[in-house]
Amino acid sequence: MDVKLINPFLAAAMHVLKTMAGVEVSPGKPFLKKDSQATGDVSAIIGITGVASGSMALVFTESCILYIVSKLLGEAFTEVNDEVNDAVGELTNMICGDGRRRLAEEGLVLQAGIPTIVSGKNHHITHIAKGPRLAIPFQTEQGEFMVEVAFANA
Amino acid sequence: MDVKLINPFLAAAMHVLKTMAGVEVSPGKPFLKKDSQATGDVSAIIGITGVASGSMALVFTESCILYIVSKLLGEAFTEVNDEVNDAVGELTNMICGDGRRRLAEEGLVLQAGIPTIVSGKNHHITHIAKGPRLAIPFQTEQGEFMVEVAFANA
Repeated sequence: MDVKLINPFLAAAMHVLKTMAGVEVSPGKPFLKKDSQATGDVSAIIGITGVASGSMALVFTESCILYIVSKLLGEAFTEVNDEVNDAVGELTNMICGDGRRRLAEEGLVLQAGIPTIVSGKNHHITHIAKGPRLAIPFQTEQGEFMVEVAFANA
Repeated sequence: MDVKLINPFLAAAMHVLKTMAGVEVSPGKPFLKKDSQATGDVSAIIGITGVASGSMALVFTESCILYIVSKLLGEAFTEVNDEVNDAVGELTNMICGDGRRRLAEEGLVLQAGIPTIVSGKNHHITHIAKGPRLAIPFQTEQGEFMVEVAFANA
C-alpha cells in the first residue's frame, strides 16, 4: 500500500485529538495486518472513494474513548451513550476531513462518506479489501486505540 | 429523504439474495428511524459518495446470517467465522453494486467504498448523518435483518 495514503490520516488523528480534545497520543509502529480483525468496544467506520477506494476505521477501547470524549466535551462520561457516539462521529469527520485536506495538498483527492459508529463490548472489525490493511496503534493516558486503513486498489 | 435513493437498494437486496443464495426475503414496512441505533450480531457497512453522501448498513441476527451464508456457499455454518465475514462482504458488494447500477439507470451516479464487517453479539450501529435514516426490516425463514440507509444531503 502506498504509505502516502496513510501518513496524512495518522497526522490528522494526532492533530485533531490534540487541538480539539487536548489529548496527546503516541503512535506505535504501523503494521500490516496478517489477520483481518481488530477488537474494540467503540469503532468509527468511514468509507473512502476517489483516487483510491477503501475504508478507515478508528477502533477504541471503552476506557480510551470515554477519556477522549470527556476531555473533548469537558464533562465526565462513564458509559458509552448517544452523546459519546455522536462525539465519536464528529471526531471521525474531523480526522477524515483533515487527512483528506493533507492528501489534497499532494494532489490526491479523496471523497468520504459519513461515519458509522459501532458500539458493543469486544466487537470485531473486518475490512473486505483486496489490498493490504495497515493498522497503527496509538497510546493515550487511558488506554489505546487503533487506526486502520484499507484500500482496494492502492 | 428521497425515496428514489432507497428503493434500488431494497430491490438489490431482494434480487441478490434470491439469485445468489436462493433465499427469499419479505420486506417489511420501511420506517424513519427515531432513535439512532440498530442492534445486530453481524453487520456490513459501506460508505457511499457521489450525488449523495451517506452509508448503507446491513444488520443481521446471527441465525439469519448463518442461514444466508450456508445457502450461499452450500455448506452448513454454525458460527460466525472469517469465511462468514468474507461472504457477508461479498454479498454487500453485490447488493451495493446492484443498487448503484439501478440508480445509474435513473441518471444518479454513486460511488461506494469497500465493505467493513462488524461481528459481536448485540452490537449497536449509529449513523452520523444530518439527514433522516431509513430502515427496512426483512424477514427470512431463519430470522430477520435490517437494511439501513442514511444520507447527509439527500
